Amino acid sequence: MATATLTIDLDALTSNWHALDSLSACETAAVVKANGYGLGADRVAKALLDAGARRFFVAVAEEGAALRAALGPGPEINVFSGHMAGDSEMIAEMQLTPMLNSLDQMLRHFETLPGAPFGIQLDTGMNRLGMEPAEWDAVREIALEQGPTLLMSHLACADDPEHPMNPQQLAAFHEMTDGLDVPRSLSATGGILLGPDYHFDLTRPGVGLYGGLPFVDAAPVAGIHVPVIQIREVAPGETVGYGNTWTAERPSRIATISGGYADGILRAMGPKAHVFAAETRCKIIGRISMDLIGVDITDAPDIPDTVELLGQHQSVDTLADAAGTIGYEILTSLGARYRRHYLTS
Amino acid sequence: MATATLTIDLDALTSNWHALDSLSACETAAVVKANGYGLGADRVAKALLDAGARRFFVAVAEEGAALRAALGPGPEINVFSGHMAGDSEMIAEMQLTPMLNSLDQMLRHFETLPGAPFGIQLDTGMNRLGMEPAEWDAVREIALEQGPTLLMSHLACADDPEHPMNPQQLAAFHEMTDGLDVPRSLSATGGILLGPDYHFDLTRPGVGLYGGLPFVDAAPVAGIHVPVIQIREVAPGETVGYGNTWTAERPSRIATISGGYADGILRAMGPKAHVFAAETRCKIIGRISMDLIGVDITDAPDIPDTVELLGQHQSVDTLADAAGTIGYEILTSLGARYRRHYLTS
Repeated sequence: MATATLTIDLDALTSNWHALDSLSACETAAVVKANGYGLGADRVAKALLDAGARRFFVAVAEEGAALRAALGPGPEINVFSGHMAGDSEMIAEMQLTPMLNSLDQMLRHFETLPGAPFGIQLDTGMNRLGMEPAEWDAVREIALEQGPTLLMSHLACADDPEHPMNPQQLAAFHEMTDGLDVPRSLSATGGILLGPDYHFDLTRPGVGLYGGLPFVDAAPVAGIHVPVIQIREVAPGETVGYGNTWTAERPSRIATISGGYADGILRAMGPKAHVFAAETRCKIIGRISMDLIGVDITDAPDIPDTVELLGQHQSVDTLADAAGTIGYEILTSLGARYRRHYLTS
Repeated sequence: MATATLTIDLDALTSNWHALDSLSACETAAVVKANGYGLGADRVAKALLDAGARRFFVAVAEEGAALRAALGPGPEINVFSGHMAGDSEMIAEMQLTPMLNSLDQMLRHFETLPGAPFGIQLDTGMNRLGMEPAEWDAVREIALEQGPTLLMSHLACADDPEHPMNPQQLAAFHEMTDGLDVPRSLSATGGILLGPDYHFDLTRPGVGLYGGLPFVDAAPVAGIHVPVIQIREVAPGETVGYGNTWTAERPSRIATISGGYADGILRAMGPKAHVFAAETRCKIIGRISMDLIGVDITDAPDIPDTVELLGQHQSVDTLADAAGTIGYEILTSLGARYRRHYLTS
């Protein structure tokens, strides 16, 4: 078995959801876009449904359709990208709730699916998705007559609690939505941690559910163990891997492990990342290749059968630091080649 | 439809295989590991089988089993990681040919599957996979008695034709295999381009088939078109995206497109990458987020419905440069969310 194992702890996931839910007095949804941040949207969403989540968010209608097939009727499935041309039939059949981002999308929705549920996404300064204040002013009355399920916006700098953009977006959201009798949502994980002013009627945590920053108290959800294919002794002066980028400076014991950038072990982390052989932290050496990585296990007392890349010893954020990115990308990059193993009590 | 389209030109793929095949007088195999470099191992391998390839290489036994199910009996499927503990049944049932990397693997193979086909991987200096000269000396006679199908090794620096490691590994390969009556293979795409000395009996191109360097004459195989969700005008001083990292310096028209790092559009390429709106090269602005990217389309004469990320205007290697990586990683990072469209004549 040369296939690496990706363990997904569904109990840790639901405990993270409960922990984030306990930080607010309002309803807590769950963001399961990008295949549940790489961990399997169907399994993740079912576990969160059992834990009490009743509203889910996905990026595109196709993700929503797959999620509806997994969850069955009942839970609300919201689509951040809204109502795109060509999606009307899928939205209707799979009972999706698009977050309408523009006048164009609103007209499309009202014309093709009159009476069908929808939310409105407002832009409070991130300039990414959602209606801007002037557009919202122009269409607000028409929109409200049709009974939106949600008015939402998204924070650009919530991971940095001191950033002046946070109160600025909060004020803009109030200005655009105060006094309207519609449920409101502004915050994902970062916003939940900014405190009650940011919670409104619904929060929508994503990365915190999956064990990533900025939720420092998150339980780790993903674990990766990679099999060792071969061990070799190399003498000082010998090189390892593509481009001869690593040269042994001492008599070294090298393990070749069966994982690589095709498994989402980002090539960029090569020079800085480590894995664990039991309790010993071992450096990744040479270039990460597509399916193989060299590891210096000279200091490990025993020869391991597998090494830990993610788990009790190392978080997604540690790996993200090594790769110069964020934990979110570590999770969504995990490839299709893992043997996936879901833990649940 | 907010899902991006990944177009895979199977005619370009097979024309790359024929072009690489024509560079040598020997047999040309095909490497289809990592799900055919992200493009779909089943479709890719079937097209290459029709084009004339009869030997395929995968990384692990599970990939081989899936490939056998797609191709049916007949073509030889070689497994680079060799014969791992627990894989004997799969190797036998799916008629896989492991490339044995060590004495351990050899004993396992001979004991559990006596008479079953195998190759031998030799380490000629990369120190990644394969038997070293001393180990090979010790087991060579036993191995040869069992009739290996192939003796192979892998070059560490073939992408750099002037690297002294190339002739060094070539000499080591000769020393380990000359005079043995077994087919030999040393070269993947880079090695093919090093010339006939490196070809032996079988070449095993990978990245060149898929349109990537170092095969400069490769036809592009992968194309990506990403839908535009929303257009907005931003005034000088306005910021776009997470962390407010981009500020408009002129009145700008921004498209939000429906793709992100969850689709393998590596977050690291954000500051340097472009997309094409018809013929206009447009800069990606702000941080690439999980499912969304901002693009400055101010200079585009028309508002696009989709933009091209990969295709006629931009190769995998251009994107790789922007991300500080190699084309291989661009391909294998392509996620599961694309609508995949296979072109074939």
